[in-house]
Amino acid sequence: MGGQFGGRSVTGRALAILGSFDAEHPRLSLSDIARRTGIPLSTTFRLVAELEQWRALDREADGRYTVGFRVWELGRLAPVNGVIREAAMPFMQDLYELTRENVHLAGRDGDEAIYLEKLTGHRAVPILSRVGGRLPLHATGVGKALLAAAPVAFRAAYLRGPLVRVTPYTLVDPARLAREIEVVRRRGWARTSEEMSLGSCSVAVNVPGTGAALGLVVHSVRRDLDRWVPALQRAAAGMARRLDTQPDHCAEAR
Amino acid sequence: MGGQFGGRSVTGRALAILGSFDAEHPRLSLSDIARRTGIPLSTTFRLVAELEQWRALDREADGRYTVGFRVWELGRLAPVNGVIREAAMPFMQDLYELTRENVHLAGRDGDEAIYLEKLTGHRAVPILSRVGGRLPLHATGVGKALLAAAPVAFRAAYLRGPLVRVTPYTLVDPARLAREIEVVRRRGWARTSEEMSLGSCSVAVNVPGTGAALGLVVHSVRRDLDRWVPALQRAAAGMARRLDTQPDHCAEAR
Repeated sequence: MGGQFGGRSVTGRALAILGSFDAEHPRLSLSDIARRTGIPLSTTFRLVAELEQWRALDREADGRYTVGFRVWELGRLAPVNGVIREAAMPFMQDLYELTRENVHLAGRDGDEAIYLEKLTGHRAVPILSRVGGRLPLHATGVGKALLAAAPVAFRAAYLRGPLVRVTPYTLVDPARLAREIEVVRRRGWARTSEEMSLGSCSVAVNVPGTGAALGLVVHSVRRDLDRWVPALQRAAAGMARRLDTQPDHCAEAR
Repeated sequence: MGGQFGGRSVTGRALAILGSFDAEHPRLSLSDIARRTGIPLSTTFRLVAELEQWRALDREADGRYTVGFRVWELGRLAPVNGVIREAAMPFMQDLYELTRENVHLAGRDGDEAIYLEKLTGHRAVPILSRVGGRLPLHATGVGKALLAAAPVAFRAAYLRGPLVRVTPYTLVDPARLAREIEVVRRRGWARTSEEMSLGSCSVAVNVPGTGAALGLVVHSVRRDLDRWVPALQRAAAGMARRLDTQPDHCAEAR
């Protein structure tokens, strides 16, 4: 079959070009792309032109490329998106109205929490999460909830570390983190206190029967965070009921 | 260069496979994909396997394929998404809290309105719009606002029709629609009354300096729709100010 050269198929090269964009590199020049993918510049040029024509990539006024409009549009058809919009969003909306804080839905993708949806307003504390972005499991509320719900073998491997210290308050001692995750598992909800970002605390619960967790991130001066647990649990139960009536699209990334 | 065969490049074929998924066909079998793209089954099989490995496609339990998680994730990096989340979302959230109705942000892509974001709750009237989905310009509130803001030549060509009749109340007479769009242009806001869907009305304004329009869709028994115009205009002005301080990412699709 045509299309194989240089050990990577043409499709593989086109996908590598798309994959060279990430949250830290949302805008790349042609030579950035060639360097990041290891694809010769002339081939990069040809493939980028094809991708641009289809709007898999878009070109900005300064000549740099971004992920294209068509990819955004197509991504909206992924099952994960439907689950979020149809089952989770109305409950997240209720939570936002009740709390006026940042409301998160996250899944686990490998060793990280991936943010599936986020509601925020003008009054909420500024936070690091970004929809489609990833944060460490052990430093975030949703991440701790996901860890508590993860298979025993995964949890044990994760807890062996290394555990990144994000702030002075991040739990990086495996034994201490293991005890905390056990508490989360028994109690049914997780919290963090400035473990991901100074000035922010979070509280989170798992959405039963899915791989997703639902959480709030609030300013750390609001110490009475636990009071939101019943509302979070009601919202998670509501989502779970809605998801139950839908085809099997686990919100978990993998 | 390798990779060209059958008049379409390998990349072109891989993109055609991705493009065979749309809102009406979010789940396709291998033979559906081959039929919709015109690519031989054996080639489809090989390319789909590559796309699945990268998670550009995901396979469901019944063997059918969907747009993959990675495309969703990548789409979140498209500039249009950042604009929505950072500049528009907080203002849309305010509008939702004020009205408890469906809140829409749409752009124009060719002859259609494309929905960029949507907020909805349990109490809002069920509607046809879907983020990433498209609806006719002349039958929707945001669409009429976008038509009023479109270049004169585009508007004239669009008004020549043919104009699809969606409900008995859709304006399909070119002269009548032209008069209405002129009113929208002068008055600064658009409305529809059961023109897209029986039982629903809408009101919309353009977001100044962008290609986007902001609208509400409410149950048609709520006849006092115009009262939301000032709130819509305030939200649109707020978005425009936020966008003004950002790089040039017009929310308009093209």
